[in-house]
Amino acid sequence: MFETASPDTVRQYLVDLQSRITGAVAAIDGGTFIVDPWHKAPDEPLQGKGITQILENGAVFERAGCGFSHVRGPRLPPSATQHRPELAGAPFEAMGVSLVFHPRNPYAPTVHMNVRMLAAKNPEGQTVCWFGGGMDLTPIYGFEEDAVHFHQSCKDALAPFGDDKYPLFKTWCDDYFFLKHRNEPRGVGGVFFDDFSELGQDQSFAMLRAVGDAFIGAYMPIVERRKDLAYGSRERDFQLYRRGRYVEFNLVWDRGTHFGLQSGGRTESILLSMPPHASWSYQNVPAAGTPEAALYSQFLVARDWV
Amino acid sequence: MFETASPDTVRQYLVDLQSRITGAVAAIDGGTFIVDPWHKAPDEPLQGKGITQILENGAVFERAGCGFSHVRGPRLPPSATQHRPELAGAPFEAMGVSLVFHPRNPYAPTVHMNVRMLAAKNPEGQTVCWFGGGMDLTPIYGFEEDAVHFHQSCKDALAPFGDDKYPLFKTWCDDYFFLKHRNEPRGVGGVFFDDFSELGQDQSFAMLRAVGDAFIGAYMPIVERRKDLAYGSRERDFQLYRRGRYVEFNLVWDRGTHFGLQSGGRTESILLSMPPHASWSYQNVPAAGTPEAALYSQFLVARDWV
Repeated sequence: MFETASPDTVRQYLVDLQSRITGAVAAIDGGTFIVDPWHKAPDEPLQGKGITQILENGAVFERAGCGFSHVRGPRLPPSATQHRPELAGAPFEAMGVSLVFHPRNPYAPTVHMNVRMLAAKNPEGQTVCWFGGGMDLTPIYGFEEDAVHFHQSCKDALAPFGDDKYPLFKTWCDDYFFLKHRNEPRGVGGVFFDDFSELGQDQSFAMLRAVGDAFIGAYMPIVERRKDLAYGSRERDFQLYRRGRYVEFNLVWDRGTHFGLQSGGRTESILLSMPPHASWSYQNVPAAGTPEAALYSQFLVARDWV
Repeated sequence: MFETASPDTVRQYLVDLQSRITGAVAAIDGGTFIVDPWHKAPDEPLQGKGITQILENGAVFERAGCGFSHVRGPRLPPSATQHRPELAGAPFEAMGVSLVFHPRNPYAPTVHMNVRMLAAKNPEGQTVCWFGGGMDLTPIYGFEEDAVHFHQSCKDALAPFGDDKYPLFKTWCDDYFFLKHRNEPRGVGGVFFDDFSELGQDQSFAMLRAVGDAFIGAYMPIVERRKDLAYGSRERDFQLYRRGRYVEFNLVWDRGTHFGLQSGGRTESILLSMPPHASWSYQNVPAAGTPEAALYSQFLVARDWV
């Protein structure tokens, strides 16, 4: 049913993906997602609607937000048309699924995934689509097998679309999810791509689906093997501290978040990514030889995982 | 000793102010500030040094950061010279004291204060100084007498410098400390001014001192009367949630923080303002008639307090 990329088929795929993912999370957690459909008031500059789903205070996930949104605007912003001058100022629509899951157990990593499409009509009246997205993993305590599994899943998903895709998108992810003010990667990365249409619309959409479809298999097995590990206040404290970095990245550097908040997006949906609890403390540097120090020295470094 | 505004006298004033304020906080708290002098490495673009002072996990203050910094740069950025074209590209120095105090008791408000000077040499070789700063109060639970006392202190401090100053700077504060993505003021405001030299250098510096000197009297009596009020998990939860707003403002909207992080400032000193703990939850709207709802309806609104 998804052979052809069109705003309708992409929307159907995305809404279904959101349901599959929240279903998988609810199954492992035992809790229930709030499902909150919303739409922007007709007098707002950007017309849009969406479905926000969030599970808070669950047994396995302390906060798991997964949003679908679909907005229409009267003219593409210049940032979206630098590679497509023929579409400058064209009406557009954008839709995507975006999620961030914060598990309760400090040994289970935070994860982010996003798949999105931008579409506009060219002067001949044809709809042109392009795609972006990716997924990346942010451990609090690093496990090599988790990072390898996550990257291998990304690589396998992209393999049918060319051997160049995984290394290219892996590097792109490392570059994007980097906290310049800390000189520190957000986590162990994954894949990231944007503004993608080079395989043609239908195959580019197929690649997007491959990434979206790979998410559950890339992440859920990691949660399964970490969610019941014993931990104490030391691990909890480090988790809260590291979540502060997640906040810093999203509010200072993430273009979607920062631009969304500054331009009148739906705040509560944009901030689904925020952790349930976070902390800050001065010059928090773990002692050498501890598992906390190993996060910085062995995982938050440029590294090939597969 | 402070009759004449010069980089030397301003620096002496600021370092002394920092000591007086941290002394007052340590006296009420019983805890001790970490005093951390720092300087930027010689190969960094902005030369600078400072003294970061922070008290964490105190009896009264959960996190109280107060920093002095003094940076020199080879050329004024364009944003600093739009009203002073004759100084475009001139070497400059900037110095200031900036503080944010997060009390432990949810009935005691968070406070921010900043006093700063920018100085550059004009083409005739004379040093030109201008000033900025202010203070603002962010209650978790609102108390009318606290807001009135804080604003009255600001108004009294500014009275010798013209009756127009308090209303002008009060409005400026309301405009600046506003979370556009929440359509919500950060707190009950106070005063804010920037780029100020209209009274001449010496009197403008005198006004800056009046604001700095007023801080202890404006804030400490409020902490004294709130620090021992009984509270429970409901008040603590609301405090953590509201501190999330503080994080959002500072990382998304505060020019000093956002620009500082993006341009290579000293991260740990810039983020002295972060709360020790903060939380986020979806669509957290207090029930009508509660004290939490009163914060939004009676305190986070445009209001004249004196």
